[in-house]
Amino acid sequence: MPALNEVKHYISGYVDGEGCFSVSFSMRKKLLVGWETKPSFSVSQNRERAQVLHLMKKVFGCGFLRQDRKTLKYEVRSLADLVNKIIPHFEKYPLLSTKNNDFKYLKQVCRLMLKREHCKASGLKKVTRIAFKMNPDGTRRYSQEYILRTLR
Amino acid sequence: MPALNEVKHYISGYVDGEGCFSVSFSMRKKLLVGWETKPSFSVSQNRERAQVLHLMKKVFGCGFLRQDRKTLKYEVRSLADLVNKIIPHFEKYPLLSTKNNDFKYLKQVCRLMLKREHCKASGLKKVTRIAFKMNPDGTRRYSQEYILRTLR
Repeated sequence: MPALNEVKHYISGYVDGEGCFSVSFSMRKKLLVGWETKPSFSVSQNRERAQVLHLMKKVFGCGFLRQDRKTLKYEVRSLADLVNKIIPHFEKYPLLSTKNNDFKYLKQVCRLMLKREHCKASGLKKVTRIAFKMNPDGTRRYSQEYILRTLR
Repeated sequence: MPALNEVKHYISGYVDGEGCFSVSFSMRKKLLVGWETKPSFSVSQNRERAQVLHLMKKVFGCGFLRQDRKTLKYEVRSLADLVNKIIPHFEKYPLLSTKNNDFKYLKQVCRLMLKREHCKASGLKKVTRIAFKMNPDGTRRYSQEYILRTLR
């Protein structure tokens, strides 16, 4: 096994290929704005090749593994873990492809969330504007237009 | 951009997720054994995110990029480049998942090819035995049984 610092560069390379930074939204009638903001960092892999996911969980010291259809998924959803563990990692060991843009957008959203911006309509608008720049090829349950139209 | 040594760890991480070590076979009536052995190292990526493929071509100092259906593919097929550039890289900057097994099998095949083993029936049998342990989920044009039955 390479030294920890080397493993961290390796993990950034792995994530640049297989990782995903995203911000999704769920309708929550109990919340003031009517919508929950859910930032996440995840990496999927075939079950037979789960070693690197376990390695990441250990190195990052956060997150969890779960079965996702045919693959195993390593996921970090806690805002505190994203801010204190995941974001500092990718600042020090940067992604070298345009996926780094998604990382930067996630960072912007997390910063707004730390300031509780997502809990009021004006802030949530900012959050959706950033979130919908991420993973343009991905599928989303709700359109940005729908969220903006229904937020309170 | 991180230091070269760090980029090399990063590349190994990227390859562990997205790379492929393989040995395929083509029927060649002009060859004594009737079959050509084709080792390769390749990494595929969406065209929009081709940066890391260009980076690999530069760092490895070999191989080429080509369009492969919807993706862009970085490929090294030259035995000399595999032996002198690709194999030494992954010995120094190892893969940390079971994909390392495929790398080891590729290395075994390349060693046999350096000794011209693939040019005679007994050697080609050895080569196919190793090659068919690789990428068990992949699709192959010819079965091992068919190659063994038709080699000369």
